[in-house]
Amino acid sequence: MKDFKLAICQNIATEDKEKNVEHALEMVAEAAQNGAEVVVLGEMFNCPYHNKFFVEFAEECPGPTTKKLAEAAKEHGIILIGGSIPERDGDKLYNTSFTFDSDGKLLGKHRKIHLFDIDIDGGVSFKESDTFSPGEKCTVFDTKFGKFGVLICFDIRFPEIFSKTAKMGAEMIFLPAAFNKSTGPDHWEISNRMRALDNQIFVCGAAPARNVGSSYESYANSRVCDPWGNVIAKGDESEMIVYCDIHGDEIEKIRRQLPLLKNRRPELY
Amino acid sequence: MKDFKLAICQNIATEDKEKNVEHALEMVAEAAQNGAEVVVLGEMFNCPYHNKFFVEFAEECPGPTTKKLAEAAKEHGIILIGGSIPERDGDKLYNTSFTFDSDGKLLGKHRKIHLFDIDIDGGVSFKESDTFSPGEKCTVFDTKFGKFGVLICFDIRFPEIFSKTAKMGAEMIFLPAAFNKSTGPDHWEISNRMRALDNQIFVCGAAPARNVGSSYESYANSRVCDPWGNVIAKGDESEMIVYCDIHGDEIEKIRRQLPLLKNRRPELY
Repeated sequence: MKDFKLAICQNIATEDKEKNVEHALEMVAEAAQNGAEVVVLGEMFNCPYHNKFFVEFAEECPGPTTKKLAEAAKEHGIILIGGSIPERDGDKLYNTSFTFDSDGKLLGKHRKIHLFDIDIDGGVSFKESDTFSPGEKCTVFDTKFGKFGVLICFDIRFPEIFSKTAKMGAEMIFLPAAFNKSTGPDHWEISNRMRALDNQIFVCGAAPARNVGSSYESYANSRVCDPWGNVIAKGDESEMIVYCDIHGDEIEKIRRQLPLLKNRRPELY
Repeated sequence: MKDFKLAICQNIATEDKEKNVEHALEMVAEAAQNGAEVVVLGEMFNCPYHNKFFVEFAEECPGPTTKKLAEAAKEHGIILIGGSIPERDGDKLYNTSFTFDSDGKLLGKHRKIHLFDIDIDGGVSFKESDTFSPGEKCTVFDTKFGKFGVLICFDIRFPEIFSKTAKMGAEMIFLPAAFNKSTGPDHWEISNRMRALDNQIFVCGAAPARNVGSSYESYANSRVCDPWGNVIAKGDESEMIVYCDIHGDEIEKIRRQLPLLKNRRPELY
């Protein structure tokens, strides 16, 4: 993979979709002005994390949000991994990430495969499957820097889907995600680190900022991990842009020293 | 799974096999006297971690070491997961873990599936495959407390083998292991935590103590993790016994709140 400068924009989504997109794209513009060549937004960057708003804010592609993402990618000459938005396709809704190339062309889209249904005693309860249909496939596409994969939030819970995306050639997996305060402190960082380490790839977990007082508070704390499983950039809970210089040759260097992929024994799994 | 008291004996192996076994079994006796019902030893508890000694110390089963393990399990009325030893079978050698029941009967044996071949720049180089042949199957057996699985050290690098062992019913996986100072600080604890979390089982990583000054220094630092991925007991670098009360009902409790196993989509992997 080639070197590039990455930026994660941690915004907060309000109940005004148009303003959310406008605000997120101001952050994207700032990131690009500061030299970022690949910019990532968080899960549901244009919509509060609530089943009611998922239905209300859902749009087709092309639609108002994806058109603005495409324009911004072209205007700034960046690859823009547009977090995720509620997507409408016929009578179905999906939690979908759209990525645009520097000429404004759609590079790839990922529909969240594993829907987020949890019920923690004394903690967070959420049933995404009340609203969304699940995606049915992994998402890997070529870019000028290398092969990128996209997965969304709860997808990170399943090592098999990371392994499959990496085997399809992804050298970096982008994961727009909104963990919460029940699971985030214990699970968020180690999940990013281990998926990177196990697959010897870069992993970028891109979260919205902490929306204190809302019905579902994001854990925030975006992370970028290298193929050794180390955290190489981190956000906190606030609205902020996290920058990270990606050194693509780390992948080959680490795979040579610790040849995990070569030592797999798939005939036994 | 039922509740039980677990102990990990972190010993140091010298170049005297008989003394190593004697010393380890003194620690096992102490653990049993303190109420441990399941006792675990580290990887190569009877042998320095060096290809030369693997060949020299290798023995068949039954052999002097496994006979003494069986006797100790029976004498103390415990389940004894005998770390690992170099095993000779015909003209092949294996890195093998033998587990004995409280009546001295062999409950199961695991031959390390993934051999440890690494070459870290400025760090540890080791090629276990120069000496050992790899095991060919997962190991799960019934005990009076529940179903136990056993894997050995480098096996933890491969999420698929943990997933397979857990799918075979293992509620707790024991991993005799000797990580080192190049990989241990970055990878040891998070690997134990994530394999527990991903499979919603208990994981016990049992290490020898730090043998300072030897050609391969163990990272030590035994860990026990619960199905939420939290560390519930830990060792340091010294010769010591690590105790841990296992509350078996945690498995069902956590699987209900965070239904990861139910939400898998194996048709897509």
